[in-house]
Amino acid sequence: MDLEQLRQQVADFALERDWDQFHSVRNLILAMVGEVGEVAEIVQWVGDDGMQDLLSSDGRTRLAQELSDVLIYLVRIADKSGIDLAEAVTKKLAENNEKYPSDKARGNSKKYTELGD
Amino acid sequence: MDLEQLRQQVADFALERDWDQFHSVRNLILAMVGEVGEVAEIVQWVGDDGMQDLLSSDGRTRLAQELSDVLIYLVRIADKSGIDLAEAVTKKLAENNEKYPSDKARGNSKKYTELGD
Amino acid sequence: MDLEQLRQQVADFALERDWDQFHSVRNLILAMVGEVGEVAEIVQWVGDDGMQDLLSSDGRTRLAQELSDVLIYLVRIADKSGIDLAEAVTKKLAENNEKYPSDKARGNSKKYTELGD
Amino acid sequence: MDLEQLRQQVADFALERDWDQFHSVRNLILAMVGEVGEVAEIVQWVGDDGMQDLLSSDGRTRLAQELSDVLIYLVRIADKSGIDLAEAVTKKLAENNEKYPSDKARGNSKKYTELGD
Repeated sequence: MDLEQLRQQVADFALERDWDQFHSVRNLILAMVGEVGEVAEIVQWVGDDGMQDLLSSDGRTRLAQELSDVLIYLVRIADKSGIDLAEAVTKKLAENNEKYPSDKARGNSKKYTELGD
Repeated sequence: MDLEQLRQQVADFALERDWDQFHSVRNLILAMVGEVGEVAEIVQWVGDDGMQDLLSSDGRTRLAQELSDVLIYLVRIADKSGIDLAEAVTKKLAENNEKYPSDKARGNSKKYTELGD
Repeated sequence: MDLEQLRQQVADFALERDWDQFHSVRNLILAMVGEVGEVAEIVQWVGDDGMQDLLSSDGRTRLAQELSDVLIYLVRIADKSGIDLAEAVTKKLAENNEKYPSDKARGNSKKYTELGD
Repeated sequence: MDLEQLRQQVADFALERDWDQFHSVRNLILAMVGEVGEVAEIVQWVGDDGMQDLLSSDGRTRLAQELSDVLIYLVRIADKSGIDLAEAVTKKLAENNEKYPSDKARGNSKKYTELGD
């Protein structure tokens, strides 16, 4: 699945339903927040220790569905904002590579601004 | 950019920094929530009417960066949960197609459970 | 601290700065999402096991600040929506009391719709 | 409604149901994220222009319910973190007063770090 293919499919889906009128960037961001909330709901009561059990049951399927919803809105937000998401993420990975050099960041969850010299 | 390529790049990035120890699914979900919060911050004060101006300025670049961060964590959550994100989103799009038939959903933002017969 | 006092203080604060123009309900909701993201960021990498350490260090102060920001926006959203938050939460607690009777809900994290008879 | 009264009511509610076992701080934060997602869902498709209509209909009641859920979890997170929320928010308001002096912040939505001298 290519990000560009996905963008096209999601755009076609909206077009066929005349949903562009609802798909302002801020509306879509709020919709994404709603879906992220559903992701959180799935894992909210299990604790870190309960995740393996959750993922062995129907929790994995439910999580897969909600993550897909987040991805769909994410791709749509980028599209309606004139952002090439594939290009943006490639650039971000390169930036992260500079901000978090392996030797300093190894085994360390500190933010790059807090990594010592 | 293929979702599988992206998954691999993000996994390699974490591996090189020995970050797997931090990348539990719940940790990653909380990190994604943080990034979604940064997306919201970018658009919080402009109002719907201010979005075009925001996207014509450096707002688009900032939005592209934060959307990329959401995508990176999203891909990583799926990976650490044993979810094939490309497969999941393909399935979800097919389900949405059934839940929102074009003729009933046209020009309508109601949830599928509220679409009349 | 009374919720009504807090509402008044937050309203005065905005009035003195001529910020009502920015405080539409949707803007405020997006701002609250941003603050919730900052709450998540504080606890994202520590894992459940690291919470006690976090709360023994400056993590408690940082968490207190971000929770306060969420509360301030929450109170402001209610105010700008014409919602009496004290009344609403009293009503919600009563509803929760009916939806989750102690005998059925005891030791059970299921949603009320899934509680057996 | 006093924040301390609310804290007590929410704590009693959990105690009666033996829910303390689920109420770790991270679980509660994830639950709050879920409720914030439900707030976002209510306003996601209406646009800024549709808010008045939404608040004139049953949208206000639904919003009041979801805001109450956010408040309940917020109060509970503070309680389980050993944070006095009333004290924290009083302190935060005082800090905001210093960070955003009326003369500089008037009519200006910039972050305090971007306010000129």
